[in-house]
Amino acid sequence: MTAALHPAEPTLAADRGRRGGRAGKRAGGAAAFEQPPFRQLKNPFAPTRLVSDDELESIHLASLRVLKEIGVDVLHDDARRIMKEHGADVREGSERVRFDGDMILDMVAHAPSSFTIHARNPAHDVHFGGDTVVIASVASAPNCSDLDQGRRPGNQVDYRNFLKLAQMHNVIHCTGGYPVEPIDIHPSIRHLECIRDLASLTDKVFHIYSLGRERNVDGIEIARIARGVSREQLEREPSVFTIINTNSPLKLDVPMMEGIIQMASAGQVVVVTPFTLAGAMAPVTVGGALVQQNAEALAGLAFAQMVRKGAPVAYGGFTSNVDMKSGAPAFGTPEYMKAQIVGGQLARRYAIPYRTSNTCAANTVDAQAAYESVFSLWGAIQGGGNLLMHAAGWLEGGLRASYEKMIVDIDMLQMVAEFLAPLDLSEDALAVDAIRDVGPGGHFFGTPHTQSRYKTAFYAPIISDWRNFETWAEAGKPTALERANRVWKERLASYEQPAMDPAIREELNAFVEKRKAEGGAPTDF
Amino acid sequence: MTAALHPAEPTLAADRGRRGGRAGKRAGGAAAFEQPPFRQLKNPFAPTRLVSDDELESIHLASLRVLKEIGVDVLHDDARRIMKEHGADVREGSERVRFDGDMILDMVAHAPSSFTIHARNPAHDVHFGGDTVVIASVASAPNCSDLDQGRRPGNQVDYRNFLKLAQMHNVIHCTGGYPVEPIDIHPSIRHLECIRDLASLTDKVFHIYSLGRERNVDGIEIARIARGVSREQLEREPSVFTIINTNSPLKLDVPMMEGIIQMASAGQVVVVTPFTLAGAMAPVTVGGALVQQNAEALAGLAFAQMVRKGAPVAYGGFTSNVDMKSGAPAFGTPEYMKAQIVGGQLARRYAIPYRTSNTCAANTVDAQAAYESVFSLWGAIQGGGNLLMHAAGWLEGGLRASYEKMIVDIDMLQMVAEFLAPLDLSEDALAVDAIRDVGPGGHFFGTPHTQSRYKTAFYAPIISDWRNFETWAEAGKPTALERANRVWKERLASYEQPAMDPAIREELNAFVEKRKAEGGAPTDF
Repeated sequence: MTAALHPAEPTLAADRGRRGGRAGKRAGGAAAFEQPPFRQLKNPFAPTRLVSDDELESIHLASLRVLKEIGVDVLHDDARRIMKEHGADVREGSERVRFDGDMILDMVAHAPSSFTIHARNPAHDVHFGGDTVVIASVASAPNCSDLDQGRRPGNQVDYRNFLKLAQMHNVIHCTGGYPVEPIDIHPSIRHLECIRDLASLTDKVFHIYSLGRERNVDGIEIARIARGVSREQLEREPSVFTIINTNSPLKLDVPMMEGIIQMASAGQVVVVTPFTLAGAMAPVTVGGALVQQNAEALAGLAFAQMVRKGAPVAYGGFTSNVDMKSGAPAFGTPEYMKAQIVGGQLARRYAIPYRTSNTCAANTVDAQAAYESVFSLWGAIQGGGNLLMHAAGWLEGGLRASYEKMIVDIDMLQMVAEFLAPLDLSEDALAVDAIRDVGPGGHFFGTPHTQSRYKTAFYAPIISDWRNFETWAEAGKPTALERANRVWKERLASYEQPAMDPAIREELNAFVEKRKAEGGAPTDF
Repeated sequence: MTAALHPAEPTLAADRGRRGGRAGKRAGGAAAFEQPPFRQLKNPFAPTRLVSDDELESIHLASLRVLKEIGVDVLHDDARRIMKEHGADVREGSERVRFDGDMILDMVAHAPSSFTIHARNPAHDVHFGGDTVVIASVASAPNCSDLDQGRRPGNQVDYRNFLKLAQMHNVIHCTGGYPVEPIDIHPSIRHLECIRDLASLTDKVFHIYSLGRERNVDGIEIARIARGVSREQLEREPSVFTIINTNSPLKLDVPMMEGIIQMASAGQVVVVTPFTLAGAMAPVTVGGALVQQNAEALAGLAFAQMVRKGAPVAYGGFTSNVDMKSGAPAFGTPEYMKAQIVGGQLARRYAIPYRTSNTCAANTVDAQAAYESVFSLWGAIQGGGNLLMHAAGWLEGGLRASYEKMIVDIDMLQMVAEFLAPLDLSEDALAVDAIRDVGPGGHFFGTPHTQSRYKTAFYAPIISDWRNFETWAEAGKPTALERANRVWKERLASYEQPAMDPAIREELNAFVEKRKAEGGAPTDF
């Protein structure tokens, strides 16, 4: 059952360029490549339940006890004032804030269960929540690497290259932040350069960092300019998102609170994601880490609703474990998968969209990188994840954006998208007549039923090498890593900047230059 | 959120040898290693439904149409006679047999929905069906490879080495066949040598090939001798299994039918697995390939019940697609995953245990090998697979058993097993008191809650390398493949043959030598 099969029709072999999967669409310029079209992914599966309703309730109730009995430290004075106004237990001279469970739940109940995030290209709007899946590329890596030049700190050229690759690939719905930190740009104006690039090198939804009020305000304004809409329309139509990582355990610092205030009051999307590594900033038990994750998430989500009722938010889960030998974070582990799935159950308990991630801790794009990533994708999809952060390019526990990993991830994500696509069970697809025509002992190569479908019948991979061993060996035994290295360079070379109205471009540049002339933003965050 | 964390307690780093995951248990001899204990895996998740009940029924009904209107070619005279006796439409001078749907369903209804397969070591008995998952190692590869000696045809030394590795690793419940074909043993007596090894180098359940009556009879007798039971007890207690691959499309050849007759009449397990590659031996549509898979599976399963009502059987799914460019089989694809999940829905429709596989088409143990394998595991687990064939060591579309892939697979399977293990949500695990003790801004390293749990809190991987980049680079940047190469050699060196009663060993050897002296089995299959 393993022998390679040889097609009856030699024409099958000659037509590779046209096999881009169903409805394949050209992307980029001269060296264009085939890929499935940009599409809103829908997850057709009922999310997997890892814990029972009673067990889920026990996590929920324990997290409410944490919020009431222990509380969180809120370092932002105005945030504490807002919390106090909404009934939180805030005491003079203390940063500690305690919350009543009912108040938390009342607030969280104002959050919408789904909403659309608007891109400057309306074709790239994404629906967030329910059964939809939004895929965001790698973010926040200090380093990047490729096979040719090795590992290096981020810079603007690499930063832009990763944006271009994210823009070119339809399976990536949005960028998730700075794919790599361009440290060759001064921190005071880095956000201006970077967000201008996000808004012009891509026409997809993007993320802005909550690192001080100015950066939020500038980011929101750039999003508004890029879309060419009024402030009022922007408030009605969320167009940027920010990730708020709590300072686990149980601490909400000034930039986070400021970010929630700026973003929620402007109607933009706040994703509250505690970074609860079991055994380090959270209890060593996955159950305990989830209790803490849930307490911190609820505190942030409730605060966003105190700032503005109905503000679009998402519940972020990032619970994983550490290597207890070294303290290093581990990802794509069984513990991570469990936390992903229970995180989804919790988010749905509060009827809030759920953010999770495609992670790995590997140092190179080897079997480990792939299995940790696919385990993460498994947990994300079966856990009902709505936003998949770091989905393409993440390596080394997030310390590195990898060009080759990005291409391998894109291939894997396209496979996941195809897995989620409906199965054709029409009379014609069930193929009883085709089976009759071939009959016992025959074969299906070259039959009309096959001929009319073979070009688009199956997903055509980017990286997978299905040549037989001898042919592969003659070609120099290329690994997936080496194939990915060739692909990203070929594809990047065909990048074309998405169109932008000249008046918008002018306004965008004028704004950025004015803000740069003003000195940008403080760098003491 | 990416910086490596450093444990407060230096003792954490010094204690690696004792971190074998919960209830870790030593295996092998001198160079023993830690691993989770042998345990019956239970899948706690409701299987994913990829198609609706109505859609499932449309596949089912189409396959009954295939059986009634088209039929299958049955090359075994006695099998046709048995089918005719049970009401099948068999016509003089033709091998074609057509079946009425009701008759097929009546027969299949006799199959047990679950049963135990008995090993010669009762601690290694496995329950098959329901929510249990049985993991079998790689089978039927003509070649093997390791990083040191490269790819080569199978031989007895490699054959035995793979059996030893399967025996040593608790996550592997049984062997799935000959891991690699030992072509240095003459085919007439190969089954005798090989099955003696299966029964003596391992004490787990094993598989025998249906390649002519003598081989089935010899295999069943060796299983009986190894267990030290009577023929009657063996009939009541299934102890070996065989995979029956139909000759797709729609052909049941002589050795297959003979295998079903021998195994079912002896009360042993028959797993009917059509090898329906969409676009080659089956329609190019996944739906059509599933219709054909189901028709062929039902024909074989019904026949087993005609031979002996209540005979233990399993529904095998192996539908995948081919690379339409080359005709090469592809595995671990989105199409494969869909077929895995719908295959599970079909098996459960008939209340029969479901067999699926851990597959990949990669030529080396790179990212492709890993992502294709984990996609396969995803489809298998979420599809409710009860028997996972080829789970450890399969490479190159089954053309090769790989020592390094076996170790990587074992690591991945142990992760899956840990993922399926219940989550501790006791009051103590929910850790509200530990969270209170640490408080906002603290850390959990070194706390009593962590200290009392850290050694067994998380799965300890075999292959995953979580060292930071600098340390990993100083160590020579070992890939997962290179690490696996080191591990299999270390582990194999610690193999110890499982105990066997001397009288049983004597009887086993006497039987094998007698049968060898008789000339073994015909080689004209």
